[in-house]
Amino acid sequence: MALSLDHVGVVVRDLDEAVHRFGMKIGWSAIRLPERLDHLGVTIVYLRNGADGTLVQFVCPTAPGPLREHLDLQGEGLHHLCYAVDDIRETAAAMAPGSEITIVRGGRGRLACFLPEPTVGVRIELTEARPSFGGFDGKA
Amino acid sequence: MALSLDHVGVVVRDLDEAVHRFGMKIGWSAIRLPERLDHLGVTIVYLRNGADGTLVQFVCPTAPGPLREHLDLQGEGLHHLCYAVDDIRETAAAMAPGSEITIVRGGRGRLACFLPEPTVGVRIELTEARPSFGGFDGKA
Repeated sequence: MALSLDHVGVVVRDLDEAVHRFGMKIGWSAIRLPERLDHLGVTIVYLRNGADGTLVQFVCPTAPGPLREHLDLQGEGLHHLCYAVDDIRETAAAMAPGSEITIVRGGRGRLACFLPEPTVGVRIELTEARPSFGGFDGKA
Repeated sequence: MALSLDHVGVVVRDLDEAVHRFGMKIGWSAIRLPERLDHLGVTIVYLRNGADGTLVQFVCPTAPGPLREHLDLQGEGLHHLCYAVDDIRETAAAMAPGSEITIVRGGRGRLACFLPEPTVGVRIELTEARPSFGGFDGKA
């Protein structure tokens, strides 16, 4: 099973400040407007590294829930690795056989899910390489 | 300033177990033998993603210090992002002007340093793209 890195996820308190501070330090910039994903209680934005095309995703909780709790307990910082797959249902079933996995509409109109348990403490998300909803227009 | 992602760093309790579990789940394998970096109190190993060439570095503390404390407090998981640069002294001075930065021999015979403060909670390491010591032979 060969999975490409889609993005590195970072949980933040303030999206605009995070984009500004990370952009100033690393020199990356947001690839599009932030997306409100109200069904997930988050707003997200992606920064692209011009040197190699890698993406960082900033995730800011907008409602009470596990991510807000994580932020309150651990503070801002690295949160997950996300891998791009062709068929999320097939890959998730192969990677976590017998588990119940919730597949949602994630960022950039793509289906996404988290594997149920971290691996060596690393939260792993899968996302489909191609958008299923409305392309790549920044609307939630 | 355009910096390429060199690796994603993950702090772990047991290197062999981490390689086994991450390899089983994601399908990556270690690119070389673990390296003991006794001057840093860590042993590290790199896994390469065959699909896109991205590296994950597992870091296991072998002595008391900040990394062992981090592991005891926060547990295993994502720890830092490392970017490859041509000239580490020049880049570190530009990214953290006026700060005292300790440049060490890091993994794969390359000079490495951490920026003094995390950015949006993300610890950022720099490493030189080319080895300065003994090439790439796995010996510390």
